[in-house]
Amino acid sequence: MQIIDGKATAAEIKKEIAAEVEEIVAHGGKRPHLAAILVGHDGGSETYVKNKVLACETCGFKSTLIRFEDTITEDELLAKVKELNEDDDVDGFIVQLPLPKHISEQKVIEAIDYKKDVDGFHPINVGRMSIGLPCYISATPNGILTLLSRYGIETKGKKCVILGRSNIVGKPMASLMMQKRYPGDATVTVCHSHSPNLKEECRHADIIIAAIGSPHFVTADMVKEGAVVIDVGTTRVPDPTRKSGFRLCGDVNFNDVAPKCSFISPVPGGVGPMTICSLMKNTLSAGKKEFYK
Amino acid sequence: MQIIDGKATAAEIKKEIAAEVEEIVAHGGKRPHLAAILVGHDGGSETYVKNKVLACETCGFKSTLIRFEDTITEDELLAKVKELNEDDDVDGFIVQLPLPKHISEQKVIEAIDYKKDVDGFHPINVGRMSIGLPCYISATPNGILTLLSRYGIETKGKKCVILGRSNIVGKPMASLMMQKRYPGDATVTVCHSHSPNLKEECRHADIIIAAIGSPHFVTADMVKEGAVVIDVGTTRVPDPTRKSGFRLCGDVNFNDVAPKCSFISPVPGGVGPMTICSLMKNTLSAGKKEFYK
Repeated sequence: MQIIDGKATAAEIKKEIAAEVEEIVAHGGKRPHLAAILVGHDGGSETYVKNKVLACETCGFKSTLIRFEDTITEDELLAKVKELNEDDDVDGFIVQLPLPKHISEQKVIEAIDYKKDVDGFHPINVGRMSIGLPCYISATPNGILTLLSRYGIETKGKKCVILGRSNIVGKPMASLMMQKRYPGDATVTVCHSHSPNLKEECRHADIIIAAIGSPHFVTADMVKEGAVVIDVGTTRVPDPTRKSGFRLCGDVNFNDVAPKCSFISPVPGGVGPMTICSLMKNTLSAGKKEFYK
Repeated sequence: MQIIDGKATAAEIKKEIAAEVEEIVAHGGKRPHLAAILVGHDGGSETYVKNKVLACETCGFKSTLIRFEDTITEDELLAKVKELNEDDDVDGFIVQLPLPKHISEQKVIEAIDYKKDVDGFHPINVGRMSIGLPCYISATPNGILTLLSRYGIETKGKKCVILGRSNIVGKPMASLMMQKRYPGDATVTVCHSHSPNLKEECRHADIIIAAIGSPHFVTADMVKEGAVVIDVGTTRVPDPTRKSGFRLCGDVNFNDVAPKCSFISPVPGGVGPMTICSLMKNTLSAGKKEFYK
């Protein structure tokens, strides 16, 4: 059984990105520039954005953080999005979610120029991904693909069961795992709250990708000997022994399941650290105009 | 066993559309207008476009057919697309595929204003469909959804196995069958050329949607008693007894499989007649500005 070390992989990739950026700059190219809009003071969002800015430093990117109070109107936010769309110095940008209730997240996402949509949430990028065209792939699915390929995990012809059908993990993951390429070419099954046969599907899976947000949902009796298990769950469970007052809990009962696996990604330290790394990869692609001119 | 009659369903829906159009026009509204661009003289395309124009008449739509020789350049075609994008009288339009090899189909598809993309091939519509937002759904998947709902076939919690992962059938069908609505909420598995366990998956399926283009591929031993089987295959098989010299052959061995089914769609007369009907539904939606202002 091998543990998939997302933290080490993410660090490795950021190092590779930094090397490429210095090479670009040394040859007179432009340093990639990521902008992030943060609305309000949600604790989780503050942390995520702070870590994104730090990752930009590690990668040698220029970064700009734009803050608004949560009293900002939708129109004001859309005006800022338009400004960033038109700013040639900004290669890519994100609007940190969630947004206050009076602002339509979907409207904001669709207002972002898809060529700068490094979060990969714009319908054009979602659609191009589904069709199999080059595009920005969103952070979590992108991170999982990277882990599968860095660990040389075979996916062709494998039965891949995805637990959860969210727009940010389950659906894109299904789409990616069935593409005609590596990682992909898998027989993909998507299970969710209305799947009476979920456990049975898991028992036959070569690869399980769990993204339902239900702590320790996947137990040993659901996992075949030799399976690959990717845990995307990150539920906050109260834990008075921690300074933060909580700990992250995955969808997989790790201690129970791990002995049966060929590969397993832990929580924390598996998929989590890969998400910001995916954003950095997309920002590099944006800087290089890799997908769009 | 009940045969799903696509021909009758399509006729019924076109009648409903025609009634709605007359109602719209009677209340001073605009008659929906579909334009079609046909490049060259491919026999199949000629027939399809002719049938689309006839269907427009049945539905009470205005239609415009624009023909080009296959010597047209990509730029000339793109210029016409731009003209139709900007023509306020045209509610929706299609460019009949395939196009001559010197023209990029993807470039043409992406040049169409997604608000007029009644074929539902533009990445924005593909992406919105995946996310579960209102949009134009492409003809074949849309037709299958309509058949499932018109026949009141239960899909929630059912195991739905899709054979084939094409961009026009397999992938969108998977996306639709897993959405949180009816028809949908199914446990979806997509099998393809690299699925060693394809037959086994089929044997456990409550619903099989076959779209691989392999005549009579699905046999009785692959189908569970009481299953719903939707046949999307339309392979042309030489047949000297026909005037056309060929007959359409489905992916399902109908005579073999039908006795085991609760519902089965035949070829021809099943999904086929529904595709043009789906285009008509999208054109009506375009005329009513149902999805986009």
